[in-house]
Amino acid sequence: MKIICLQENFKKGLLNVSNITGKNLTLPILNNILLNTDKKQLKLSTTDLEMAIISQIQCKIEKEGDITVPAKLLVNFINNLPNNKININIKNNIISLKCENYNSFIKGLDAKDFPIIPKIKNDPIIEIDSFEFKNALEQVINFVSISEIRPEISGVLFDFSDEKKAKFVATDSFRLGEKTLNIKNSKIKKGERKLIIIPYKTIQELIRIISNSKNNILKISIENNQILFDLEENQIISRLIEGNYPNYQQLIAKQFDTTIITTREELIKAVKIGSFFSSKINDLRLKINSKKSQIEVFSQDIELGENASQINSEIKGKDVEIIFNHKYLLDGLNNINTEKVIIGFNGETSPGIIRPEGKDDFIYIIMPIKL
Amino acid sequence: MKIICLQENFKKGLLNVSNITGKNLTLPILNNILLNTDKKQLKLSTTDLEMAIISQIQCKIEKEGDITVPAKLLVNFINNLPNNKININIKNNIISLKCENYNSFIKGLDAKDFPIIPKIKNDPIIEIDSFEFKNALEQVINFVSISEIRPEISGVLFDFSDEKKAKFVATDSFRLGEKTLNIKNSKIKKGERKLIIIPYKTIQELIRIISNSKNNILKISIENNQILFDLEENQIISRLIEGNYPNYQQLIAKQFDTTIITTREELIKAVKIGSFFSSKINDLRLKINSKKSQIEVFSQDIELGENASQINSEIKGKDVEIIFNHKYLLDGLNNINTEKVIIGFNGETSPGIIRPEGKDDFIYIIMPIKL
Repeated sequence: MKIICLQENFKKGLLNVSNITGKNLTLPILNNILLNTDKKQLKLSTTDLEMAIISQIQCKIEKEGDITVPAKLLVNFINNLPNNKININIKNNIISLKCENYNSFIKGLDAKDFPIIPKIKNDPIIEIDSFEFKNALEQVINFVSISEIRPEISGVLFDFSDEKKAKFVATDSFRLGEKTLNIKNSKIKKGERKLIIIPYKTIQELIRIISNSKNNILKISIENNQILFDLEENQIISRLIEGNYPNYQQLIAKQFDTTIITTREELIKAVKIGSFFSSKINDLRLKINSKKSQIEVFSQDIELGENASQINSEIKGKDVEIIFNHKYLLDGLNNINTEKVIIGFNGETSPGIIRPEGKDDFIYIIMPIKL
Repeated sequence: MKIICLQENFKKGLLNVSNITGKNLTLPILNNILLNTDKKQLKLSTTDLEMAIISQIQCKIEKEGDITVPAKLLVNFINNLPNNKININIKNNIISLKCENYNSFIKGLDAKDFPIIPKIKNDPIIEIDSFEFKNALEQVINFVSISEIRPEISGVLFDFSDEKKAKFVATDSFRLGEKTLNIKNSKIKKGERKLIIIPYKTIQELIRIISNSKNNILKISIENNQILFDLEENQIISRLIEGNYPNYQQLIAKQFDTTIITTREELIKAVKIGSFFSSKINDLRLKINSKKSQIEVFSQDIELGENASQINSEIKGKDVEIIFNHKYLLDGLNNINTEKVIIGFNGETSPGIIRPEGKDDFIYIIMPIKL
C-alpha cells in the first residue's frame, strides 16, 4: 500500500473507529485497526466481535494494500502530527508514516488475521434525521440496565410498530423512559421485525459518532441478527439482543388518583438538597398536600440529620405520601426539558408517571420504594 | 449560637477550608468543620493534624457559640441553597439551617472535642505578592517527590538566604526545578532559619486557596516547627518538614560542552510524539548534531516500532547522544514560558540543564538515563 492523506481526515476517521479497541487481552488483533484501500478511499475498521465501526477517508492512492495497526499508538501518533500531508507506505506488515519532520515505523499484524466484519446488503427499512435520533437515544440511554442478569433489558428497545412514530425505550426495572419520535420514509413491511433491542454499547457509540458527524441522514438496515447504521462516511454494524422486551405499556396508567403540575427546576433543586440527607437506600419522601397546594420533599438520615423543602404546585385529587429513590427521580426530571412537569400517582405502591407539560413525546415511569 | 449569614459568603468560606477533611477514618471529628463565633465573624476551621485551614466570614451574630459539623454534608447542602440569607441556630449540638423554603437539621459533635489548632504569634518574616508566589509554587510543585522514603524532598524548599531573592525548589532526585522570585520587605534577621521545607499537601492547598482569594498580600510567619500563611480572610498553618535539603547547587554546571538554543514548542511536540514509541522505561534519545544544526529526537520500542523527528536549532560545542525520561523532559519544558529555551549538556552521564532564554528566574536540572 502506498497512499497520501491529510492528517485532519485521518485523525477524524480514527476518532470514529478507535473507541472500541484496546480492551481485549485474549485476542490482541482486536486492539488493532484494519486499514485497507477500497474504491479510492482508505477504509478504517474496528470490531469487538459484538459490533464493528467502519470509517472511510479520502486519500490519494498510489498502490492498493492492507494492514492492521495497534489503535492506541496510531491514534496518539496521528493526533499529534501537524495538519499536513502524511505519506503512508506498507511493506512486510510494517507501516511507515512521514509527515514534515516526523518519521515513524509501526509494526502491524497481517490483515488476513482480522475478524470478518458482517456485510448487510438489505435495503434500509428506515431513514431518520440523525440528530433527532441521537437526542432521542440520549434521553433514554441512562435508564438501560447495566447488569447482565436480564439481557433483554441490557439495551434500548426500538419500536417501529407504528408507521409514523418510532419509540425508543430503556429500563433497569426500577424506572423506565419512553421517547417517541415522528418518522418519515419507514419501509417496514407487514410481517417484518418491528421490535428490536440494541446493545447499550452500540447506542453509546452511535451517540458519539453522530455527535462527531456532519451527515444528518441515518439509514438503518436489518439482516438476520445484525443491524447496520449508515451515516455515509461511517457505518456501525451490531448484533441485536435476543429476547422479549418487558410489556411495560401496562404500567402506564390512564387515570390518576393524584395529579400534580409543578416547576421542574424547583423540584430538581429540592430533590438534590434532600438527597444529601437521604439514608443509604437513597429514599426520599414526597408528601403531596392538596389543601396547601404543596409538595414537601422530606429526607432523613438517623446519623446525619434531616431536611424538608416545600414547593408550591397545582394539585388535583387525593393527598399521598410516596417514597422514591432520589437518583431515579432526578434522572427522570433531568431528561425532560419543559418548564413544568405533570406527575401522576395512584397511591403509594403504584408506579409514578412523569411527563413534560404540553408534550406527549416522553414518558418516565418510576417505581416507588416500599419500606 | 444564633447567626444570620449570606449563602454566598458561607459557600466561599467552606470552599476554602473543606478540602482537607473527609479522609480520616480513625478520628471522625477530623471530617468535621469547626464553626465558632469570633470578633463579630463566623470562623471556620479544619485540620488533618499536619495542617489547619481557617476562614472568616462576615455574619450578623445574635448569640455566640460553637459546634463541629460533618464537612461533606454541610458543603453539599450550603452549595445548593439559593443565594439568600441563612438563619443558623445551634442547640444541643444540632445545627438548624433555614433558607427560603429549605429547612434542615444537622447533627454535629461538640466543639470541645476538636483538636487544638496551633497559634503563631510571631511577626511576619516576609510579605510577598500572593499571585507571584502562587505562580512560583505552580512552576515547581510537580517535581516534588511523592515517595516518603526521603521525607526531606517530600516538600518544597523555601530558601530565604538572600535578602532580595527567595528561591523555591522541588525535586524527586530524577529532576529538580528552582524558581527565583524578587522580594521586598524581608524581615529575616541574622541567625534565623532561612531554609525551610513545606509539605507537598500544604503547597497544594496554598495554591488552591490563593487562586480563590482576592487578597494579593501574603504574610508568612514561623514559630518553632510551624509556619503561618496569612491571607487576611484565610490562614493556613502547617508543620515544617525536618531534615536537610540536598545540596543541589553543585549540580548546576557553569560551563557546558554542548549548548543548544531551540524552539520550546517544537521540542515539546517532538518529545510528545517520541513518547508514544518509547519503551517501558520511558527512554528517549536526543542526538545533538552541530554540523546539521539539528536535534534528533529518537525513540524505539522493539514491539511497536520507532520514531525520529528533527528540530533545527542553534548548537555550540560537542556532538552528544543523551537519553532522558520523556516525562521529565516534558515536565521541564512545560514549566517554562519563553519561546526559546537554552539547554546545556556535559556529556551523556552528567545532568542536563534547561533554562528559559533571556530570563534567569528558573532552572531545570534533569538526570540522564544510563542504559
